[in-house]
Amino acid sequence: MMQSYRYKIFVTYDGTSYGGWQRQPNALTIQECLENAFDQIYHEKVIFTGSGRTDAGVHASSQVAHFTISFAIDSKKFLFSMNGVLPKDIRISHVEQVPLDFHARFSAKKKIYRYRLKLSPIHSPFDRMYSHFVPGNFDVDKMKLASKKFIGTHDFTSFANEAYEGSASKDAIRTIYAINFLEEPGGYTLEFQGNGFLYKMVRNIVGTLIEVGRGKTSLEDIDVMFAAKDRRFAGSVAPAKGLFLHQVIYD
Amino acid sequence: MMQSYRYKIFVTYDGTSYGGWQRQPNALTIQECLENAFDQIYHEKVIFTGSGRTDAGVHASSQVAHFTISFAIDSKKFLFSMNGVLPKDIRISHVEQVPLDFHARFSAKKKIYRYRLKLSPIHSPFDRMYSHFVPGNFDVDKMKLASKKFIGTHDFTSFANEAYEGSASKDAIRTIYAINFLEEPGGYTLEFQGNGFLYKMVRNIVGTLIEVGRGKTSLEDIDVMFAAKDRRFAGSVAPAKGLFLHQVIYD
Repeated sequence: MMQSYRYKIFVTYDGTSYGGWQRQPNALTIQECLENAFDQIYHEKVIFTGSGRTDAGVHASSQVAHFTISFAIDSKKFLFSMNGVLPKDIRISHVEQVPLDFHARFSAKKKIYRYRLKLSPIHSPFDRMYSHFVPGNFDVDKMKLASKKFIGTHDFTSFANEAYEGSASKDAIRTIYAINFLEEPGGYTLEFQGNGFLYKMVRNIVGTLIEVGRGKTSLEDIDVMFAAKDRRFAGSVAPAKGLFLHQVIYD
Repeated sequence: MMQSYRYKIFVTYDGTSYGGWQRQPNALTIQECLENAFDQIYHEKVIFTGSGRTDAGVHASSQVAHFTISFAIDSKKFLFSMNGVLPKDIRISHVEQVPLDFHARFSAKKKIYRYRLKLSPIHSPFDRMYSHFVPGNFDVDKMKLASKKFIGTHDFTSFANEAYEGSASKDAIRTIYAINFLEEPGGYTLEFQGNGFLYKMVRNIVGTLIEVGRGKTSLEDIDVMFAAKDRRFAGSVAPAKGLFLHQVIYD
């Protein structure tokens, strides 16, 4: 029997120029770049399986992926040569061998996403691709109150754009453990900790919270949104550029 | 006699896509963008005079410029409409009326430039356009010692690429008040405070300091460089993307 080796990697990327994580016909993706780089260096076609998709334009501070090959790799050489070949907006920060039953998506216990909101009068040019600018009057305390409505186990159908293809569970029930408001110069970073997130779920919740902050949506409206189980009831989707897959946690 | 009004502005820009501050035939510049935006809104051609040029690819956290017009402007309307028309990598953060004898370049008493160096094993995708990546072994203490050689009043001919066109003084004598090493996650920001800087002077000094950090240049070599008064004796120029015009100080 041929021996197999499985490796787990941490990947950081600026999603601005990409069609998201997952390989697709009409856009360059992070997965494709990793697989092409591996092929270029090791002359072997492997599949990099991510902890989940990130959508077009979404960033990752630390995405996790795994791949399986028939030979052992040297981690130092892997990091050096892969990063030498990859575009500069994709970096592998870590690689380690893992048991063959480790799976980047199915073994994940918790995911942390962060959404960066800037409220200052001017959107800094250096933040323009990495945050969403929300100028004008903004009630952050009300947003914090509204965020509590999303914590816990709920059917998030109204906050998902469509079924999460390839997801382990086919329903829209997810658990959010915490939504933290991290104060930053000129704005807030909203941190979402959960057991999994549906397609565009974080961005739909942020879009709804922004409307609360602007006084366009009340706390009671959120109850109506949940009850409707219909995406059309919730607020508009917040732009991809503010969203970061921050961390994936395993046992 | 026609009345004149002079205004001072603070401008923040990501220099990545520009040929520097100053208008020139073959590249889009910050000055040109500001002048075009003003013309578009106020239907008047004015000159925006900067505190000094920044070179192609160099950023500004806060460049200062002035312009003179025959009518008074409303500062709120000016900020709103100019930022509405300007590209998103150029933002005006402040405008105020100043006396007619205020001059963005000649009235400047002190300038602060910052140069961002990243030493961590991986160059973060989010920092790739806003810092210079210097991986490998690096002796920061030796760099700090070497930086003291540049503090004070010196003839910086060896650290200037050419005469600073349009400069008030035609010689290369400048005073550096301080070079501070600000520790950051994964690196250092080198802060240069001086009464003025020659063309590429900060980047040439940083390039030389990097060679000191790598053990390629000794403290004694720097004395030789100063004495030579010849650019070819100094270290290589550090890339533009790490450099920020941080602040211009007036009385």
